[in-house]
Amino acid sequence: MMRGAMLLGVAMALSAPGAQAGDALPSWRDGPAKQAIVAFVERTTTAGSPDFIAPGDRIAVFDNDGTLWSEQPLYFQFLFALDRVRALAPQHPEWKDTEPFASVLAGHPEKALAGGDKALIAIMQATHAGMTTEQFTQLVRDWLATARHPVTHKRYDEMVYKPMQELMAYLRAKGYGTWIVSGGGQEFMRAWVEGVYGIPPQQVIGSYAGLAYQPGDPPTILKTAQPELVDDHAGKPVGIQRFLGRRPVMAFGNSDGDFEMLEWTTTGKGPHFAAILHHTDAAREFAYDRKSPVGMLARGLDEAPKRNWVVIDMAKDWATVYPASP
Amino acid sequence: MMRGAMLLGVAMALSAPGAQAGDALPSWRDGPAKQAIVAFVERTTTAGSPDFIAPGDRIAVFDNDGTLWSEQPLYFQFLFALDRVRALAPQHPEWKDTEPFASVLAGHPEKALAGGDKALIAIMQATHAGMTTEQFTQLVRDWLATARHPVTHKRYDEMVYKPMQELMAYLRAKGYGTWIVSGGGQEFMRAWVEGVYGIPPQQVIGSYAGLAYQPGDPPTILKTAQPELVDDHAGKPVGIQRFLGRRPVMAFGNSDGDFEMLEWTTTGKGPHFAAILHHTDAAREFAYDRKSPVGMLARGLDEAPKRNWVVIDMAKDWATVYPASP
Repeated sequence: MMRGAMLLGVAMALSAPGAQAGDALPSWRDGPAKQAIVAFVERTTTAGSPDFIAPGDRIAVFDNDGTLWSEQPLYFQFLFALDRVRALAPQHPEWKDTEPFASVLAGHPEKALAGGDKALIAIMQATHAGMTTEQFTQLVRDWLATARHPVTHKRYDEMVYKPMQELMAYLRAKGYGTWIVSGGGQEFMRAWVEGVYGIPPQQVIGSYAGLAYQPGDPPTILKTAQPELVDDHAGKPVGIQRFLGRRPVMAFGNSDGDFEMLEWTTTGKGPHFAAILHHTDAAREFAYDRKSPVGMLARGLDEAPKRNWVVIDMAKDWATVYPASP
Repeated sequence: MMRGAMLLGVAMALSAPGAQAGDALPSWRDGPAKQAIVAFVERTTTAGSPDFIAPGDRIAVFDNDGTLWSEQPLYFQFLFALDRVRALAPQHPEWKDTEPFASVLAGHPEKALAGGDKALIAIMQATHAGMTTEQFTQLVRDWLATARHPVTHKRYDEMVYKPMQELMAYLRAKGYGTWIVSGGGQEFMRAWVEGVYGIPPQQVIGSYAGLAYQPGDPPTILKTAQPELVDDHAGKPVGIQRFLGRRPVMAFGNSDGDFEMLEWTTTGKGPHFAAILHHTDAAREFAYDRKSPVGMLARGLDEAPKRNWVVIDMAKDWATVYPASP
């Protein structure tokens, strides 16, 4: 009994409401966005609160590109694919005369992209299928270790948002499960997000093509080119239902590709919370919204007030954007 | 520091190696199967053991039909589908003259099944698609509350295996994540497994057809008839990679539909464990293996010895099969 009572006392002290919770978010300025997040987390995790949510039901979902790391001038996964086209070119002499590969190899990826979805799919299939999952994971890790962003010259995994890393750790300390729900490739993200965000592979929902089991010694799982889920727009609530089987309580996004995820999260029963990260910071990151081909945000901005979605203003709300380089 | 040290002491006392671990499995007789399970769990969860596995990597996967609950004389989900055909018949007057429905309605489901996969798919699509996920969940729960097994006259969710319930609780207490990987329908299982097995919806991998997000007030997610994953045989490692993104450490199955799951689990690096439940107990449950159309087990029995897979003999190894009826 005595040990039990002591444990209880310690647990209560650690989870006391308002116990300097804000200190968990030092990279956030003390503005309305931070206050709204902390207030929601406190009232859903404090025993006796009318909005208390049982630990097993505390689920927070995060878009990745533009919400947890940068996405300009092009989605980083697409920059990986372009690098893979260049690396694979010697094995594909025919690419010199075949679009969209010819334009990529000639140094004009924007011309390759003029081929639309068909060109994009061809590039993704040529670079993301036909190897085992383990081989693909190694390719992504090797690329991350050496590639540099064309504007900042940082490693791509140094262009994650420190305030969001803090937010995910804060939520986990409060009993929330943190999940990624992203248009990015599921296996691409799994290769690095556990180390960078603390999110294990089973909590990564992304776009995916087929997988094929290959018996053998040893057996392997092959990545195929068969499209299965595009985890964007209406595909996000579908991915959430498929993997989580329940509605999230909190959702964070940055573009109209996240609209349906935020809508699904905030139309369930019980307390819910959604926030949009608005890229307003040309000095420290990038500034874009309605007219950007990458991360376009228009409907979300228009409807956020009436839906009670919080808009995080990067320039105003964040004291820091990226972690200090090692 | 003092509180920290006390907490640590309590935690160590609670997880002390060999602390009467066997007591967690009272429905298992003290034979080779139980001993092998406990020995593996102890050596993978005891700090300092050469086979120690970090808590985040401790993943155990379980087939459902025939491994966690009974599956004779037909998969219970198929019995649900037949009941749904009867319930829906008034809305489908054409079924009286259309196979496979006509045979079901005439009381001859075995004749309906003579139509093979095509008949089975027609019955599943007619009963499992075209409603929202929430509506389907309610249908399953209402059915479970009233339907009775044709042989035992028990509720179907009373025909779960008590030794496996204890095993899953024991594994969770040892830091293992417990996951279902079953040929059964994902949403069918999610409707009841959390209460019965303690497994939350996000740890249920099953067969599934499509989902479609429908905006509206409120938005819903519709179950469609589009096949996506048959989570059986080679589909099991595929489902594991898709949902878990890592190889399990322990796998439990009962039929050759589980072969590839056990193979995938036991060909990874590091410690691993697999067991097959052999249905040998005609007195308390059912006895079947090589010649059963449901839960056929042949290759698994043949290869278990050379693959070091444990064979659980239900009649010998289990002191109890089902939980006491309420």
